[in-house]
Amino acid sequence: MSTDARVTVATIEADATIPGIRFVRDFEATPEQLFRAHTDRDLFLRWNGPNDMDTDIQVWDARTGGEWRYVTRDDRGEYGFHGCFHEVRTDRIVQTFTYDGFPDGVALETITFTDLGDGRTRLEALSLCDSFEGRDMMLASGMEVGVHDGYAKLDGLLADGSI
Amino acid sequence: MSTDARVTVATIEADATIPGIRFVRDFEATPEQLFRAHTDRDLFLRWNGPNDMDTDIQVWDARTGGEWRYVTRDDRGEYGFHGCFHEVRTDRIVQTFTYDGFPDGVALETITFTDLGDGRTRLEALSLCDSFEGRDMMLASGMEVGVHDGYAKLDGLLADGSI
Repeated sequence: MSTDARVTVATIEADATIPGIRFVRDFEATPEQLFRAHTDRDLFLRWNGPNDMDTDIQVWDARTGGEWRYVTRDDRGEYGFHGCFHEVRTDRIVQTFTYDGFPDGVALETITFTDLGDGRTRLEALSLCDSFEGRDMMLASGMEVGVHDGYAKLDGLLADGSI
Repeated sequence: MSTDARVTVATIEADATIPGIRFVRDFEATPEQLFRAHTDRDLFLRWNGPNDMDTDIQVWDARTGGEWRYVTRDDRGEYGFHGCFHEVRTDRIVQTFTYDGFPDGVALETITFTDLGDGRTRLEALSLCDSFEGRDMMLASGMEVGVHDGYAKLDGLLADGSI
């Protein structure tokens, strides 16, 4: 199997024309496994976010029209996030996202899972903000640490049969 | 009272830099009245949409993290819409919006109510789409009829003391 085109480290890029951030990452997984990793409360808890933070999920109703809320904690403090699930279907999740520390900022996130064949699935996500300033703040927030750490933990859960 | 600057017919304009549509409309109302018009199920039913259509609200949970779904009907057919309420607070409502006939299209709507003094309140809304094509389709959909008709009905409810 050629691995030349494999995206094992997430690409995180500003869209050229809309105020969004695009993410691409391949996993050794089926679309159904990635769907479960994003919708099963206990699985999500085990991979989401940076390595040095604990997550406490307070609300989790991963269905079309549902809602979510969690808090992450490290030595420096506590960071809350919340949103609603606009659509939850096996190949696509659309949800809103707000960091409590910037309560008027809202991103609309669309995550898709595409079967690449040979056991791999490509995750593509768009975080759409309502201004380029908000998008650039999100890009500068250090969130890539949580993305890379989280997906590496997800790789581990897939490899050890947890999902 | 000068009425020179009063926006009695909604302005509906494409944003110059992001794939959004901006709406502005003034009402003889308090922010609290406009908030109720947008969150109370029975009131919303009485003003939303074009004059020649009936609305049937199927799901209505107007709170942060809640969801909504309604169907409008006319002689030609039935049109379903749904979304979730990301945030519901007295001066601002953030919600998602999808037309069932175009299920992969999602708009993130932010509606704010600003007290202008002298009994008037300005409604400002942004419908943010994930592409300029989607935004332009929404602009070309004829939705301005529903906006203008709906706000005129809302004027009537405010004038007759229903709200």
